[in-house]
Amino acid sequence: MKTNRLEAFSDGVLAIIITIMVLELKIPEGHTLESLKPIIPTFITYILSFVYLGIYWNNHHHLMHASDTVNGKVLWANLHLLFWLSLFPFATGYMGENHFEYLPTAVYGFVLLMASLAWGILFYVLRQKHSNQTIFRKAYNRVWKAYTSTGLYAIGTVISFFYPVIAISIYVLVAILWFIPNKQLEKTIITN
Amino acid sequence: MKTNRLEAFSDGVLAIIITIMVLELKIPEGHTLESLKPIIPTFITYILSFVYLGIYWNNHHHLMHASDTVNGKVLWANLHLLFWLSLFPFATGYMGENHFEYLPTAVYGFVLLMASLAWGILFYVLRQKHSNQTIFRKAYNRVWKAYTSTGLYAIGTVISFFYPVIAISIYVLVAILWFIPNKQLEKTIITN
Amino acid sequence: MKTNRLEAFSDGVLAIIITIMVLELKIPEGHTLESLKPIIPTFITYILSFVYLGIYWNNHHHLMHASDTVNGKVLWANLHLLFWLSLFPFATGYMGENHFEYLPTAVYGFVLLMASLAWGILFYVLRQKHSNQTIFRKAYNRVWKAYTSTGLYAIGTVISFFYPVIAISIYVLVAILWFIPNKQLEKTIITN
Amino acid sequence: MKTNRLEAFSDGVLAIIITIMVLELKIPEGHTLESLKPIIPTFITYILSFVYLGIYWNNHHHLMHASDTVNGKVLWANLHLLFWLSLFPFATGYMGENHFEYLPTAVYGFVLLMASLAWGILFYVLRQKHSNQTIFRKAYNRVWKAYTSTGLYAIGTVISFFYPVIAISIYVLVAILWFIPNKQLEKTIITN
Repeated sequence: MKTNRLEAFSDGVLAIIITIMVLELKIPEGHTLESLKPIIPTFITYILSFVYLGIYWNNHHHLMHASDTVNGKVLWANLHLLFWLSLFPFATGYMGENHFEYLPTAVYGFVLLMASLAWGILFYVLRQKHSNQTIFRKAYNRVWKAYTSTGLYAIGTVISFFYPVIAISIYVLVAILWFIPNKQLEKTIITN
Repeated sequence: MKTNRLEAFSDGVLAIIITIMVLELKIPEGHTLESLKPIIPTFITYILSFVYLGIYWNNHHHLMHASDTVNGKVLWANLHLLFWLSLFPFATGYMGENHFEYLPTAVYGFVLLMASLAWGILFYVLRQKHSNQTIFRKAYNRVWKAYTSTGLYAIGTVISFFYPVIAISIYVLVAILWFIPNKQLEKTIITN
Repeated sequence: MKTNRLEAFSDGVLAIIITIMVLELKIPEGHTLESLKPIIPTFITYILSFVYLGIYWNNHHHLMHASDTVNGKVLWANLHLLFWLSLFPFATGYMGENHFEYLPTAVYGFVLLMASLAWGILFYVLRQKHSNQTIFRKAYNRVWKAYTSTGLYAIGTVISFFYPVIAISIYVLVAILWFIPNKQLEKTIITN
Repeated sequence: MKTNRLEAFSDGVLAIIITIMVLELKIPEGHTLESLKPIIPTFITYILSFVYLGIYWNNHHHLMHASDTVNGKVLWANLHLLFWLSLFPFATGYMGENHFEYLPTAVYGFVLLMASLAWGILFYVLRQKHSNQTIFRKAYNRVWKAYTSTGLYAIGTVISFFYPVIAISIYVLVAILWFIPNKQLEKTIITN
């Protein structure tokens, strides 16, 4: 199977996830300023999830770009990643509607953690397949970002049960961390 | 009509089915561990349906790959398959929300059975059209998997009315059966 | 603008319409055979709408195939068609949930009628643009099907207020009419 | 990253937004003419939002057409635009269900305003990247339309709190303004 077909399918799924998430932003009953208040936490979570999915879409493209064909392993590793990303609308609505309570914040962190691990598996499977390809190895030689964020998600998930505010701060921090462009990576891919 | 357009449309529909299914995972009221319990069966069903749709997407690609153009018959046989697959979110939510009760488990099995038969029809129509093409005939000469799973879905649907747990075990078993890669098929398609 | 981009967008919209329609098939409360009864009318309507959208998708492809570029007029005539088609999930749920009552059946017919008129406008705009192109004119010289079905939708919409069953029979009849392949059209397009 | 991939993703998101918006058109309980009345405002808003999204899709294509590759800045400016457009279904349902009340009308205007500003940012980022490209500068030299509509959205948002009817008239006016084809723009892009 060609990579571009897997990429088109993944793009489609990501586009749908990022868009149906808005359905969790329930229309408030009433039209006073007061009635808008309860959906503010969901709106904030919506922004955070939107940014995360944007980051995943962008990184997914870079990862796939370094590969040309896919085998069964890559296909299922990719579907496994999409599975956890598909839970974003649920996790977003759950945390938002419950106003950052202990358990929902932990569930949100857990989904982030699992997506991060699924990303790691996809990366590992792709690297294995391209062990001799210099570009791939070079570009992804130091994936400290991925390790750091996986660790931070795990910490965030646990902290949620005690201080949800700190957990959410960690989730926001990781998003910012990914937002900063990975110059080296882009250069290696573009110049090759 | 070119095959790749039918494939793009089918991919789109499959990507949407696999993604909107998460909307059946209703956000629980409350934020206690207790409130998460009732959605566990839906979550388990969600995983199973996700795997099934992933398998269908993968197999659909292989089937279409063996063909180059489509006629009216193929087009409608394909839409017929998509029709039954489009009922996955409904069947998933119905079985999950009713915690694997007799009738919902049978309905889930029935949708699996009909999708399987629709697959068989699509396969038959495509083979008829490519009767002289050696690659197609070779690759799909022994589709024992398809026959076996259709039979198992039928058994599962009937058993649902007596022992739903056994029916679900059968559905899981068939999914595992498809998960094991069909080496021969892949080889024949790649080498030609 | 190239035709293929308009086609890809239209395909996307059609794929989403055909798929989210299943969300109108509300999961019944309870798990008895009795509880499934109320959704049977929606399920029947769902099948009808699915077939209609399949027909539109197929015909849309043929129409676009006869054209190579699009201008502003074509673009908006196309969006106008997509607008009425986007109301299919609403009309399906409305007629199904109200068990083929007078008004909902008329609303369903009205949406079919408007989609049919929108199709006529798109066809007219495209023909105007390709007045010199022989293939286009030949293939679409006798669009008696389109005129007949528009007329039948109008009759069906009016009859709905008196005999909904007859109206629905008409809607089914038109679907069957379109299901029968238009040999001449296919030939003209393929051989040119 | 190639422009066409960003475009395909944006097209997908826009196709989904324009289609799931219909889910905000809640199926009325009952089947009398009276029961249809409450959804008329949502239906009117639905038409307006549909036209707006059609305009954005069309303009987005023209803007992207003038560019060939995208960098990180363009990517995020584009996601920022998609974020505000993704709120259309929410804003549509909120204004429609509340029958053009003060606050919902202002929220609708605010979403239009932010999408308009996001469009401006995307335009600015793209122009910066193509400062030497004559076609781009020429075609977008006089974007008075964008400035005018941004201003009108801001006015509309404020007026909503006093005379919602006037605010909505402004929103309709801007849509009409964009509906009139920008001859010069099209010519410049086509002839180059």
